[in-house]
Amino acid sequence: MKYDIIVLGSGPGGYVTAIRASQLGFKTAIVEKENLGGVCLNWGCIPTKALLKSAQVFEYLKHADDYGLSVKDYDKDFDAVVKRSRNVADGMSKGVQFLMKKNKIDVIEGYGKLKAGKKIDVDGREYSADNIIIATGARSRELPSLPQDGKKVIGYREAMTLKNQPKKMIVVGSGAIGVEFAYFYNSMGTDVTIVEFLPNVVPVEDEDVSKQLERSFKKSGIKIMTSSEVTKVDTSGKGVKATVKTKKGEEVLEADIILSAVGIKSNIENIGLEDVGIVVDKDKILVNDFYQTNIPGYYAIGDVTPGQALAHVASAEGILCVEKLAGQHVEALDYGNIPGCTYCSPEIASVGLTEKQAKDKGLDIKVGKFPFSASGKASAAGTKDGFVKVIFDAKYGEWLGCHMIGAGVTDMIAEAVLGRKLETTGHEVLKTVHPHPTMSEAVMEAVADAYDEVIHL
Amino acid sequence: MKYDIIVLGSGPGGYVTAIRASQLGFKTAIVEKENLGGVCLNWGCIPTKALLKSAQVFEYLKHADDYGLSVKDYDKDFDAVVKRSRNVADGMSKGVQFLMKKNKIDVIEGYGKLKAGKKIDVDGREYSADNIIIATGARSRELPSLPQDGKKVIGYREAMTLKNQPKKMIVVGSGAIGVEFAYFYNSMGTDVTIVEFLPNVVPVEDEDVSKQLERSFKKSGIKIMTSSEVTKVDTSGKGVKATVKTKKGEEVLEADIILSAVGIKSNIENIGLEDVGIVVDKDKILVNDFYQTNIPGYYAIGDVTPGQALAHVASAEGILCVEKLAGQHVEALDYGNIPGCTYCSPEIASVGLTEKQAKDKGLDIKVGKFPFSASGKASAAGTKDGFVKVIFDAKYGEWLGCHMIGAGVTDMIAEAVLGRKLETTGHEVLKTVHPHPTMSEAVMEAVADAYDEVIHL
Repeated sequence: MKYDIIVLGSGPGGYVTAIRASQLGFKTAIVEKENLGGVCLNWGCIPTKALLKSAQVFEYLKHADDYGLSVKDYDKDFDAVVKRSRNVADGMSKGVQFLMKKNKIDVIEGYGKLKAGKKIDVDGREYSADNIIIATGARSRELPSLPQDGKKVIGYREAMTLKNQPKKMIVVGSGAIGVEFAYFYNSMGTDVTIVEFLPNVVPVEDEDVSKQLERSFKKSGIKIMTSSEVTKVDTSGKGVKATVKTKKGEEVLEADIILSAVGIKSNIENIGLEDVGIVVDKDKILVNDFYQTNIPGYYAIGDVTPGQALAHVASAEGILCVEKLAGQHVEALDYGNIPGCTYCSPEIASVGLTEKQAKDKGLDIKVGKFPFSASGKASAAGTKDGFVKVIFDAKYGEWLGCHMIGAGVTDMIAEAVLGRKLETTGHEVLKTVHPHPTMSEAVMEAVADAYDEVIHL
Repeated sequence: MKYDIIVLGSGPGGYVTAIRASQLGFKTAIVEKENLGGVCLNWGCIPTKALLKSAQVFEYLKHADDYGLSVKDYDKDFDAVVKRSRNVADGMSKGVQFLMKKNKIDVIEGYGKLKAGKKIDVDGREYSADNIIIATGARSRELPSLPQDGKKVIGYREAMTLKNQPKKMIVVGSGAIGVEFAYFYNSMGTDVTIVEFLPNVVPVEDEDVSKQLERSFKKSGIKIMTSSEVTKVDTSGKGVKATVKTKKGEEVLEADIILSAVGIKSNIENIGLEDVGIVVDKDKILVNDFYQTNIPGYYAIGDVTPGQALAHVASAEGILCVEKLAGQHVEALDYGNIPGCTYCSPEIASVGLTEKQAKDKGLDIKVGKFPFSASGKASAAGTKDGFVKVIFDAKYGEWLGCHMIGAGVTDMIAEAVLGRKLETTGHEVLKTVHPHPTMSEAVMEAVADAYDEVIHL
């Protein structure tokens, strides 16, 4: 079979690319070895958000009396919580199946391997295309000191389908995946300890955000060890023993399970990159601004390329890639304006430079911050933890960064992303009438704070 | 005592104006007859949001099993729910007190009445100022056919502090206040009927939004009578009997209480407007672009002026008014870009023209719509009701309107308001990478739908 475009991998990079390609008139096929939707839909973004929603509701049950309500007899059913999450994931995967059919995209089931001459071998069958787009994504990274056995030392995939809720859990790594699971399991009643190599949790975030999360997590009972490293794991006994090197010396932690959440590893092995001669560097396929690899006719998008390993980046890259193939006038993606979200409670959302990054660049900046403790809506909703922090260039007024931690901020960051794309100044944000009473007023107030015009502080 | 600026009324118009005035170096006083913060903080925006939060949590208790949780023994304590709301309001009012002190604003307690010569009489004491800003706000409007007795026929003020929860309630009017209370009382277990004079509930919203809310409300058990009017009320018996004229004829409804929520009436009586000679038309004080009345030195902002009677409008007007007085270069407020929010469930948020308004203007438009039922985040969160609808000018790409109904949309509308202020095109919104998985992706997808590029439909 001959196609205009074959996409290898059906995660949020691949399937979105295929849909856009089909819209643009390309005869399109997509190759998937497992479930349509990839990790994001089946083992990532979506099912974890379902787990976290259960945790949020469970927190409301625990604190119902704060709202004038009383709950005497309540419990969680861990199996049911996991089952709900799986059902949501299955529903979404079926949705992608429907979208493939609706957009007349051929779904080729099986393990695809690239071949020279713009061909793909899928379990012995051969397909060719004018353009092949590699979107094979990534998986949980394994540390040599922390080999995953899938039982006592697990990755995110096992963490969302455990048969039994662990009593004690060690989470190694405090990026988005680590802190989301730490929050979820702690909320469900598991005793959770986070071990982070760097000095702060969520180390890619602004330091103020890291500190706020650490405070909120500690208040909710999560133990946190920063500047610490798991150097040895002993799984020989009933549970696991982890030797943790801290600044103060070594400590041995015991737990039922260790979740390794130390980042991801691109899926670039055994997909034929070497046979075709596609250049890889530092675990990533090298591409130009429009996702062409060094070999004509082969493209790569998503987690296998150097951009941020995020679902929305993969989707945006794939759309751009095929729009360019269709001859549309497209602009390259601005990787400096990609939002990142973490869905624990309080939520985290950010875009652009942190204060430290801005200072390290030698920029003269204005910083504004507005705490939700001063927000009327937050008071009414009982969500006073957190803040919005904004960073502007002092000279030109450019909105360099926006960092949020608090309830619902993952839905609020879009304003900052759009504002930055449109090259807004702080003054324009300030003169945009934000509705009262909302959490979003905190954006306006944080900007006002940067310019010494804040009202509610 | 002589001031640079005296503000009459300390609602979200008045107190924000006073703070900004003080920041700008004006010697400022504020006159308040009751509680700092006015209706918004004490009897409006804030305490209602507190009630609605209790309702939201109560809904989670009712539906806990949807999330893999079980609740056997639960209840609401109506008194405690009301008390929480009052505590939140009191806390906010104390916050304004703190802000007044911090900004060195003199708070003059008492009933202020304007006098000629830029003076105000407050219960016999006289104060003068170079500039007087009238911010006396509004109250619940009374219909001749529906006189409020504060017991059986009540306004919003009584509705948020009822001693006993009514078993049956009729809500007359389905603007923001009406539907918020209808949602709250229905959620608490009261049998609620909405009577709306116009053909749609939330009649200022886009018709699609009205229809969605009607569906959601009916599903939750609220009875809705549109194109209907209460013509007579009989409070002589134990409860109330309301005669309702419908398209099909007359009907008599019985209830414990009728909430009249048919709009507001400006507080322009007995404040000395006539003595000063300030011109009033159609219940509003006439002002120019920078809130000057016809009499030099007298200004008016907020609900007493013709702009939308919303807290955030009042605040924005007051800030502009004093910035202009300070000689700053300011632009007049764009009343076409004011967001409106309603906090029932599903929430409603909108800005700009409805589809009907755009068509009535003879504009050639592109309309896009994305339902939350197709959103991954909404599926994971169990909040699939609602949609985002966008309206663009077909020729110039101007973003004419954005209409949202669904969970958390009141915090999402700011993106549209900022985008419209910055004169974005649809294409720019489309190419702004929205984080996945969030409800905010629906904005991007709705825009994509308008341009036939939607991915997830």
